[in-house]
Amino acid sequence: MKICVIAPVVLQGGPRASLQEFAPAAWPGSQVEVVSLDRGPVSIESEYEDALAAPDIVAKAKAAEVNGFDAVIIDCMLDPGLGAAREQVSIPVVGPAQASMHLAAMLGASFSVITVLQRLVPPLHERARRYGVLDKLASVRAIEIPVLDLEGNPRAAVEPLVEQAVLAVEHDGAHGIVFGCTGMAGLARAVGEGLCQRKYRVPVIDPGIAALKVAETLVSLRLAHSKLTFPTPASKTVVGYPSLG
Amino acid sequence: MKICVIAPVVLQGGPRASLQEFAPAAWPGSQVEVVSLDRGPVSIESEYEDALAAPDIVAKAKAAEVNGFDAVIIDCMLDPGLGAAREQVSIPVVGPAQASMHLAAMLGASFSVITVLQRLVPPLHERARRYGVLDKLASVRAIEIPVLDLEGNPRAAVEPLVEQAVLAVEHDGAHGIVFGCTGMAGLARAVGEGLCQRKYRVPVIDPGIAALKVAETLVSLRLAHSKLTFPTPASKTVVGYPSLG
Amino acid sequence: MKICVIAPVVLQGGPRASLQEFAPAAWPGSQVEVVSLDRGPVSIESEYEDALAAPDIVAKAKAAEVNGFDAVIIDCMLDPGLGAAREQVSIPVVGPAQASMHLAAMLGASFSVITVLQRLVPPLHERARRYGVLDKLASVRAIEIPVLDLEGNPRAAVEPLVEQAVLAVEHDGAHGIVFGCTGMAGLARAVGEGLCQRKYRVPVIDPGIAALKVAETLVSLRLAHSKLTFPTPASKTVVGYPSLG
Amino acid sequence: MKICVIAPVVLQGGPRASLQEFAPAAWPGSQVEVVSLDRGPVSIESEYEDALAAPDIVAKAKAAEVNGFDAVIIDCMLDPGLGAAREQVSIPVVGPAQASMHLAAMLGASFSVITVLQRLVPPLHERARRYGVLDKLASVRAIEIPVLDLEGNPRAAVEPLVEQAVLAVEHDGAHGIVFGCTGMAGLARAVGEGLCQRKYRVPVIDPGIAALKVAETLVSLRLAHSKLTFPTPASKTVVGYPSLG
Amino acid sequence: MKICVIAPVVLQGGPRASLQEFAPAAWPGSQVEVVSLDRGPVSIESEYEDALAAPDIVAKAKAAEVNGFDAVIIDCMLDPGLGAAREQVSIPVVGPAQASMHLAAMLGASFSVITVLQRLVPPLHERARRYGVLDKLASVRAIEIPVLDLEGNPRAAVEPLVEQAVLAVEHDGAHGIVFGCTGMAGLARAVGEGLCQRKYRVPVIDPGIAALKVAETLVSLRLAHSKLTFPTPASKTVVGYPSLG
Amino acid sequence: MKICVIAPVVLQGGPRASLQEFAPAAWPGSQVEVVSLDRGPVSIESEYEDALAAPDIVAKAKAAEVNGFDAVIIDCMLDPGLGAAREQVSIPVVGPAQASMHLAAMLGASFSVITVLQRLVPPLHERARRYGVLDKLASVRAIEIPVLDLEGNPRAAVEPLVEQAVLAVEHDGAHGIVFGCTGMAGLARAVGEGLCQRKYRVPVIDPGIAALKVAETLVSLRLAHSKLTFPTPASKTVVGYPSLG
Repeated sequence: MKICVIAPVVLQGGPRASLQEFAPAAWPGSQVEVVSLDRGPVSIESEYEDALAAPDIVAKAKAAEVNGFDAVIIDCMLDPGLGAAREQVSIPVVGPAQASMHLAAMLGASFSVITVLQRLVPPLHERARRYGVLDKLASVRAIEIPVLDLEGNPRAAVEPLVEQAVLAVEHDGAHGIVFGCTGMAGLARAVGEGLCQRKYRVPVIDPGIAALKVAETLVSLRLAHSKLTFPTPASKTVVGYPSLG
Repeated sequence: MKICVIAPVVLQGGPRASLQEFAPAAWPGSQVEVVSLDRGPVSIESEYEDALAAPDIVAKAKAAEVNGFDAVIIDCMLDPGLGAAREQVSIPVVGPAQASMHLAAMLGASFSVITVLQRLVPPLHERARRYGVLDKLASVRAIEIPVLDLEGNPRAAVEPLVEQAVLAVEHDGAHGIVFGCTGMAGLARAVGEGLCQRKYRVPVIDPGIAALKVAETLVSLRLAHSKLTFPTPASKTVVGYPSLG
Repeated sequence: MKICVIAPVVLQGGPRASLQEFAPAAWPGSQVEVVSLDRGPVSIESEYEDALAAPDIVAKAKAAEVNGFDAVIIDCMLDPGLGAAREQVSIPVVGPAQASMHLAAMLGASFSVITVLQRLVPPLHERARRYGVLDKLASVRAIEIPVLDLEGNPRAAVEPLVEQAVLAVEHDGAHGIVFGCTGMAGLARAVGEGLCQRKYRVPVIDPGIAALKVAETLVSLRLAHSKLTFPTPASKTVVGYPSLG
Repeated sequence: MKICVIAPVVLQGGPRASLQEFAPAAWPGSQVEVVSLDRGPVSIESEYEDALAAPDIVAKAKAAEVNGFDAVIIDCMLDPGLGAAREQVSIPVVGPAQASMHLAAMLGASFSVITVLQRLVPPLHERARRYGVLDKLASVRAIEIPVLDLEGNPRAAVEPLVEQAVLAVEHDGAHGIVFGCTGMAGLARAVGEGLCQRKYRVPVIDPGIAALKVAETLVSLRLAHSKLTFPTPASKTVVGYPSLG
Repeated sequence: MKICVIAPVVLQGGPRASLQEFAPAAWPGSQVEVVSLDRGPVSIESEYEDALAAPDIVAKAKAAEVNGFDAVIIDCMLDPGLGAAREQVSIPVVGPAQASMHLAAMLGASFSVITVLQRLVPPLHERARRYGVLDKLASVRAIEIPVLDLEGNPRAAVEPLVEQAVLAVEHDGAHGIVFGCTGMAGLARAVGEGLCQRKYRVPVIDPGIAALKVAETLVSLRLAHSKLTFPTPASKTVVGYPSLG
Repeated sequence: MKICVIAPVVLQGGPRASLQEFAPAAWPGSQVEVVSLDRGPVSIESEYEDALAAPDIVAKAKAAEVNGFDAVIIDCMLDPGLGAAREQVSIPVVGPAQASMHLAAMLGASFSVITVLQRLVPPLHERARRYGVLDKLASVRAIEIPVLDLEGNPRAAVEPLVEQAVLAVEHDGAHGIVFGCTGMAGLARAVGEGLCQRKYRVPVIDPGIAALKVAETLVSLRLAHSKLTFPTPASKTVVGYPSLG
């Protein structure tokens, strides 16, 4: 199967490392390709940037369907454009927040999300409410490292992530950890080990990879989102978005 | 005070009637101006069109703040761009869905939303969940008349609206009615009278006007949305949105 | 329009300052009159005093309707007699707790109520549950100053209010503040400034004034509470309440 | 033990049959006395009448405590004055709605309340929300017989009660039945048998008797309501209620 | 009436003290007998041990019904086998967790459960969710004394129970206390007094005795669990449980 | 990876077809083995049979871990023994109800479960509550075919499944369908096609296969259930379960 990962940002000065993260995690036979945006923000740390990313995410999802991809992943923890893209295509579109929060809800009584910046706490809290898992959310915490700094040196985030995860367990009652930014890809094992050293054996979920596995699952089960919830919009004039004409 | 109403669509072939609807409803001393979008859809009947409208809504809200407006209303029942615009400005930004659903929740044990098309049921249901009033929502119903048809001949919608409102009361347990499209502006009194003829004395809320009154209230009380929930985004490069550069 | 503010207490030794608070906040053309009770408590700080106030509140609301008022406000944060009065009249009856809590819910992800005495925490918590906004309530806190002391020297409450509001933000996750007593009228701006000095730009809501603006809004929109939720009682013998005979 | 049943109405033309209902249901050794009100309505079928009954209910509850009663029952399905009375006394005060709804919640996945008049549906729905059992409430239905008619000829209510109970089971998904008026006392067995004839073996709860048993249980366990939830009010001047001076 | 208390463990080295606890608490005329299991764990401190106890609990409940008992109590705070036993018999089967949590919900705005071991916190939290009272649960706390140690010297638990109960009140907002293990039987009064010394007059509920009183109440009201929620299973082959063949 | 599927019943007269269902759905490299129980019921259609199956499910899960399996699936829609087994092992244990309900919650606004017998409606409703997805559950419906009949001739269930699924969509507002019995394995495509013929493009989820894919996902992500939610029980004497001694 072919999975299209949309990195929902405009890349500046070289591609993001997304492909390296996703390819090894895919099942044998899954092909992963990464595309980024032509129009949008350079990183997403607000509802505002989520909104700027959404139109071109829909365009890229439509292109992926036309080009024979079997599923789409929107590689950002705010799940920008998820509903809009699902309306426009019939292949599964998967958001890391939705996939990882539901996975965490399956694995324990509660979970905390650890994200990059305090300013992302309200949007992530809102995603938990939107997806119906608010009563399992113990807290949202932040390590106060911006996304672009994180991508430059992800390893530097391990220690702050462990620190916040321990606080989530001890103060907030978390029984699991979900990373609150897909830029934290690849750090789940190290953070899980840090927690184990304090005797906390809890799942630590990397949301981008979780989204990949959910996408593969949906394709293999021939499932996709409901067209009663996400009906295809009528064809109408659109001004200012040539790719969505 | 000066209120900016953003008609979140690109107008084709003449302005929408918005000004005529809002001006008479404003308090003496309130000035209402209507702007529409340069980039976006021609009508909003999906999450997809909501997403296409959002970026220019933010641009128009920022311009309104710069130009001395005291508050902004986004004149569409999906509240497109509400969170994103609130992050970018400090003056109140009001959405008709949020304003009218909370007003309805104050006035009775439950309410139904009557919208234009069946396809809008899931997004409106989702707005009720987002705003925390889902347990007061009796149902969302549709009259199956598209927005643009409705705007051409709003009076034709009265009878179908009364019919659906009666079903909402009798079958779904609604104790109040909220219009599910701001294109239904001006029809609340007629629909209320239709319900009264069946002995149902329930509030019928026109969401656009409700948003205007909430905006005036917020300005007069010197209130605005919380900057802890909607923090101002850091200034960053944006590609493809010159008005938001 | 004419708004009747019911100060739901028996005044002893001079009128409450209510009129001075409400009149300047009213829209031009709104006339505000204040009445107090002939039968009831001298202040309301319990469900017990709420119950003692309710019968005469209903009598005063009925009198207001007969006398041509367009709306009624019950000037107490427990909203005493709100449902009972709504049953007996058709003009809007607005409670400060309901109006301010829904307004706060529109403006941010969460809010705290700061009231006078710890003993009012359970009744205010119960009001949040009754109105369906419990999941937005971060906490209820108290400054431990009784209502009658507060009314004698409201300015003295500013510092304790700021202190509790800061604790609400920092410890309880509040994104907005609602005063938990209408005796705190006039202090919202000072408390808001105190919060701003700590960099917290959050709405601070004065519930009595919020109720006034909601009442004006309802009158201007020709809306009132649902008669399906609040049906008019049958006429029956009543013993011991001559004003309700 | 001595239990005081407050019939929260002013009796006209002879005592209600309450004592005959309660005495046989009491444990050996329990003594039941019934008092009615000096001030209040003649029956309670609205929030308005609930409010008129509450002050004298508190007075009677205080008198009961002074006179050595071990517990108080407020014999009306709206639980009028429950919180206010609990604040003023330390002996248990039990409301039929609260007692019977929690009992029903223990016995099955859901329950419906069958009351006298349609107009009582919203207040009873509100009680379920207040007590935290709303998600177990399948529906509230009415037989459209006023309380005073019911008390004149309770047997006539059996058939309509069975009819509504069957509709509750078949249409609303009820797995249990709670009577929505204490005037239905004594009919539970007949209604239960009516349901059994249709093969529905579900609990049918008589709320007044349920309240009695909960009161006896609390006394025997030396339990009462929490004084953190229902703190004793400060002693203050009260105008117009000599019995509460 | 005859009540069968199932001590859901295999006793080793002498009977549990259950009978001494229950007999004095029963109404005159109630006869209490205690049975223990032939197959199962020696104590229940996990979902695993709950599962091992359940089959023989059902067998003992069936035997109790055959032998003319009027009700069954499962004397463990996890309510093991409650649903399964209710399916197999028509006499009331009562679980201490369900009975005590609903009783606590009647008596105050919130309650905490104080149990033996931290490892029981998730199962008890889950019971609160299962019974629909999660929003009244302030916290679950543990004294870190295993059940079998507790039964050897229950008095030693009073001080730790008071300590945790005070923390529950002061830190978690509890307005009532429910013991989280039926091995704490007999300690409610001492713990309540310890709380009173700190000025906290809150109910302290002994769940086993609460279950007894609920069982007696159900028998006296001729009530039992709903057979729509707990339908009798079809008769089928069972392998390996001779007592249930 | 090696996945152990526990068919949680005692097989009589030949193995269930489980292996044929699971093997083709597994990723290349996944090995699936099926074990059944030595002690338990012959089919599970009640909480009672769920309880009888649980002890040997735990024994089989422990054996699977010892024998080097990477994950365990409990092949029954009631998820019998899920929590108990998770306490005893560290490898992931997956239940079809939990896996499929969360998957359905990701794919649309609501879903219905279609099961074999009406008597399974309450337990399945309870599972939705337990897993926190109750507010997404539109309904539970039954085709009234017992499990063992279903397994004899699964194709005969397609038409009744389509019929109930259409009712779920049209009457209950379902936007997705989850099979309520793992004996319906292999029918999802046919039922989905039946719905498509009525223009309903909604996901139809086969819970056993969904559980397999979730198990594979967890293994590949090195994730398992939280040991804070499911702590390993202390080693204690057990009577009557030699396989768990």
